[in-house]
Amino acid sequence: MTDTALPGTFVALEGGDGSGKSTQVRLLAEHLAGTGREVVVTREPGGTELGREVRALVLAAPGGPALDPRAEALLFAADRAQHVAQVVRPALARGAVVVTDRYVDSSLAYQGAGRALAVDEVERLSAWATAGLLPDLTVVLDVDPATAAARRGRDTSRAGEDRLEAESRAFHARVREQFLLLARRDPARYLVLDATAPADVVAARVRGRVAELLGAATGAGRA
Amino acid sequence: MTDTALPGTFVALEGGDGSGKSTQVRLLAEHLAGTGREVVVTREPGGTELGREVRALVLAAPGGPALDPRAEALLFAADRAQHVAQVVRPALARGAVVVTDRYVDSSLAYQGAGRALAVDEVERLSAWATAGLLPDLTVVLDVDPATAAARRGRDTSRAGEDRLEAESRAFHARVREQFLLLARRDPARYLVLDATAPADVVAARVRGRVAELLGAATGAGRA
Repeated sequence: MTDTALPGTFVALEGGDGSGKSTQVRLLAEHLAGTGREVVVTREPGGTELGREVRALVLAAPGGPALDPRAEALLFAADRAQHVAQVVRPALARGAVVVTDRYVDSSLAYQGAGRALAVDEVERLSAWATAGLLPDLTVVLDVDPATAAARRGRDTSRAGEDRLEAESRAFHARVREQFLLLARRDPARYLVLDATAPADVVAARVRGRVAELLGAATGAGRA
Repeated sequence: MTDTALPGTFVALEGGDGSGKSTQVRLLAEHLAGTGREVVVTREPGGTELGREVRALVLAAPGGPALDPRAEALLFAADRAQHVAQVVRPALARGAVVVTDRYVDSSLAYQGAGRALAVDEVERLSAWATAGLLPDLTVVLDVDPATAAARRGRDTSRAGEDRLEAESRAFHARVREQFLLLARRDPARYLVLDATAPADVVAARVRGRVAELLGAATGAGRA
């Protein structure tokens, strides 16, 4: 935790659509719950009631006037501010493990790298929205865009591609590069995994790294 | 215009609820339309479809989880970004006079002075949302909070006070001081008027100052 007053542990899973994030969030949460810890599973956008309304506004099918890129980034930041204040910080204050499906890096990758906005500006926006709260660990589920698209096509539980999913293959390639760039910049707080490996293999590696974190947190003490 | 590539003229009316803003916006627009100019009357929050949805989220009656102050500021900034991109800049590019009922200063006064947020942080947020677009003239309709509350009480067309209106008298006093502080900081771009004067007297002073602006814009030329 960047905020040492919060005794909990904060883990974010990031990656493109079709990278298997939802599955890995579920497997990690089930494992942690089995160890008797309090686990809070959440997501962005849409981790709060406000967030669900904001998510609906942003992901609405095309047709109306174009959503301005800054307005889009600000809506995601509003969702994030509410999510951190209402869900994440209270859970971390109780000592829970918080596992979130997407966090700041998704905004940097999608709004920053993918759109017309500067990544450092979107980063400042997120830092303000969260009052500087960063995950202890961010897991990047890395997959090339073509494989991810094929996975999404096989998943018949999805009713169709929404607006963001329908963006071009080139867009998804830029998003992927941005996730990898963020991980290279701060390797101690990142775990990049090949998302094309079998789900149980990926899950075992996520569990291992989270166990190290929890051991460090409950072991010799933290600064 | 801070952006000299935009040939139009941008006028914002600011002030507390009950200061007579809506009346003055209407009187100014009617006068300008009578001179044959294109006039675009708009408002924040809620000047676009997205903005109306955002406004509904923010002004909703209490009951659910508290809206985080940063989330609130970000939602207003999202509304503003969309409003500037979709309504204000295109109208200014056509050479129209844009008259807006509230703009950046309302966020600074309500979210900044009234809440737990630093004014300079909210100002940076608004500057980013608008890509730096400031009005040529901001009219502050100044009225003490007690008088404004009495005016609102007499206005039977209002169904009741919404969440922001129901805030304490002390809050409204801080909002008023913030508007006056912004005006003192940049007097060339502000006109502060006593909103307890008769509406036609206030309207004449607004018209006079706007006429000077338009004369300057169409006369000797602008930098």
